[in-house]
Amino acid sequence: MTGLAGGPLTRERCAALDATDPLASLRDRFQVPDDVVYLDGNSLGAPPRAAADTVRHLLDEEWGRGLIRSWNEAGWIDAPRRIGDKLGRLIGAAPGQVVVSDSTSVNLFKLLTAALRARPGRRVILSERDNFPTDLYVAEGVARGMDAVLRIVDRGELEGAIDESVAVLMLTHVDYRTGFMHDMGSLTEVAHAGGVVALWDLSHSVAAVPLAVDEWGVDLAVGCGYKHLCGGPGAPAHLYVASRLQEEMRSSIQGWMGHADTFGFEAEYRPAPGVLRHLCGTPPMLAMAALEAAVDLFGSIDTAEVRRKSVALGDLLIRLVDERLAGRGLVVASPRDGACRGSQVSLSHPQGYRVMRALIDRGVIGDFRPPDLMRFGLVPLYVRHVDIWDAVEVLREVIDGELWRDLAYAVRATVT
Amino acid sequence: MTGLAGGPLTRERCAALDATDPLASLRDRFQVPDDVVYLDGNSLGAPPRAAADTVRHLLDEEWGRGLIRSWNEAGWIDAPRRIGDKLGRLIGAAPGQVVVSDSTSVNLFKLLTAALRARPGRRVILSERDNFPTDLYVAEGVARGMDAVLRIVDRGELEGAIDESVAVLMLTHVDYRTGFMHDMGSLTEVAHAGGVVALWDLSHSVAAVPLAVDEWGVDLAVGCGYKHLCGGPGAPAHLYVASRLQEEMRSSIQGWMGHADTFGFEAEYRPAPGVLRHLCGTPPMLAMAALEAAVDLFGSIDTAEVRRKSVALGDLLIRLVDERLAGRGLVVASPRDGACRGSQVSLSHPQGYRVMRALIDRGVIGDFRPPDLMRFGLVPLYVRHVDIWDAVEVLREVIDGELWRDLAYAVRATVT
Repeated sequence: MTGLAGGPLTRERCAALDATDPLASLRDRFQVPDDVVYLDGNSLGAPPRAAADTVRHLLDEEWGRGLIRSWNEAGWIDAPRRIGDKLGRLIGAAPGQVVVSDSTSVNLFKLLTAALRARPGRRVILSERDNFPTDLYVAEGVARGMDAVLRIVDRGELEGAIDESVAVLMLTHVDYRTGFMHDMGSLTEVAHAGGVVALWDLSHSVAAVPLAVDEWGVDLAVGCGYKHLCGGPGAPAHLYVASRLQEEMRSSIQGWMGHADTFGFEAEYRPAPGVLRHLCGTPPMLAMAALEAAVDLFGSIDTAEVRRKSVALGDLLIRLVDERLAGRGLVVASPRDGACRGSQVSLSHPQGYRVMRALIDRGVIGDFRPPDLMRFGLVPLYVRHVDIWDAVEVLREVIDGELWRDLAYAVRATVT
Repeated sequence: MTGLAGGPLTRERCAALDATDPLASLRDRFQVPDDVVYLDGNSLGAPPRAAADTVRHLLDEEWGRGLIRSWNEAGWIDAPRRIGDKLGRLIGAAPGQVVVSDSTSVNLFKLLTAALRARPGRRVILSERDNFPTDLYVAEGVARGMDAVLRIVDRGELEGAIDESVAVLMLTHVDYRTGFMHDMGSLTEVAHAGGVVALWDLSHSVAAVPLAVDEWGVDLAVGCGYKHLCGGPGAPAHLYVASRLQEEMRSSIQGWMGHADTFGFEAEYRPAPGVLRHLCGTPPMLAMAALEAAVDLFGSIDTAEVRRKSVALGDLLIRLVDERLAGRGLVVASPRDGACRGSQVSLSHPQGYRVMRALIDRGVIGDFRPPDLMRFGLVPLYVRHVDIWDAVEVLREVIDGELWRDLAYAVRATVT
């Protein structure tokens, strides 16, 4: 690892890395409490200070003074497209292919139904067992409603499962449990070779790892605004439809925002051109404003630098676990090769739930996913190398202290 | 009209009504600029001051300090149900039948698909030509996707159009153009007599007129948070499923928030009990917080008093138009009988678009709907009797001044 080769790791050496970190100054642009180590950006990113500013502006000036006029004068009506285009730059999409709207679940529903309708001769949605559960729930509901089939296979069997019955390959780029990252370009190519639409969920990738959806030939994608992107709790989601597919993809949820003439109040629905037809209802502007601030912040940063530090933080965490926490039942569940890993490191432990509770009580905030995974999300804009050091030290204290003491009690109780 | 019988109307008499108005003090709880008369609550209600407070608290404390912990500790996870139950009180629904979620369009989609599936032998969605266009768009999309039919008839033909093919009667309670208000109880009874599910859109009724969905036997309903309810631009919408129907109504959009074990991350989808299964994705908490403040405010007020003043303001506006603006081409497009009118008054005028532009330029903010309707929404919590007087006076100035001057120019241009 750059800067950490040779000699044992120390907190001082971590601090020295922070001192020369080109991203270090960005931490001040986030609101992160001093008394916590926040490693849960894979679930909810910390607030950019600019988000609070834009939301206050929306409250006081746009809603408070502009009132209804702000739909035009403050650009609310264009927000789904405007923020979509900015967000598109973060995922490698040229303008006119991304809109911000609804939740990831609703967007996934819209695109799955659209894709199945566009491929009437094929009735299978193909996915993998380890996909994000809610994506599988949505797909199962879509299949049930459209006389289609959700085919779920193990990761290694995906390519072999592609045949002429498959309409859509639906995958999440970065595994929410382990951080394992698919090769999106290669799998998309495999899908296309089989005549299959490739639909990717970017929820755990956007703002976390480099993405090039246009270059990789991705057909459809959905993503989340509130994880690594730091757009706020429940931030509006987004969806991507590649230009070449926009004419044939029609939304099943036909709302006024997706009409060709938004304010025409025509009797008949006419889908808007391009990706805009996938809008439906009115966007929640307070949440949109926070998201836009986050997108603007990420848009101003060198993403290669972000990725470099993200991998370095993950490597550091894994190495510290190896060196300082050996023999304690912890298993690194994430890929050790940073190139195949999203911006998180997961550790399994038989007592994972209890350990994570104890960590959180001590101010080290990650999260837990059944059955035994502790997840540590790494947002390089505010996470420091010393945070990783401190988290691992607290983890050691928890396992050596609390768990061991309890084990001793348990042994004594059994003996007496 | 109470307090205004006998003798000509004057601004002083309007001011006197405001001085004794039991709701007058509520205006201070809203942020309404002094330099406008805001009569567009039917499209976007003005901000309750408490909304700004709760949003700031969410930004600084809940997201900023609590971070991911706030899903439990600040009650985010319960917000759709909690706010739903509070909102239920405003529409006459006992607890456990309302959730706040998504947009009105998405909620309508969910309930229409659920209702069609629950009535497999019936393939018609019945609605009226003057329904809110976006509701018809959604219904047309649902029908297209489910081999069903959207049957649209004139208002007077609704009852006669109910037959054994009709699964759902879908109506909007208060007409967005004219403010005409259906008799929800009677029409629901007619629907039930024909074995039809009654689905009501409350978007222009909630917080505007008295509602008693339980008492009236309503089956399903959707509604909007950002109009009379003042929940903020694009505030999350809500939906109602009567207890007796909850088991048979299943959502077509199966997301994690509607799972029986939200945080279980089970492989299979199991619908949550009751109305909660109609949740799908993660709620936008910034927008939810503003909405909750608005719902709390309305929940603390005597709704009978609100209705009384709403009707009084509408009657005043109509009488002023009759008395002071006669012969100017204005037609009252709303019911003159307050009992059949929502909380808005619409006036048609051949030059309606231009007149409304001119009104807005002068700080009287209503809105315009094609082809010729000027709408004036009345939120009695912050609209005063003098506001109505002032609005009508500005309307007179605009028509007598600007329009007449332009007409004179036009005549001159034609003559010379």
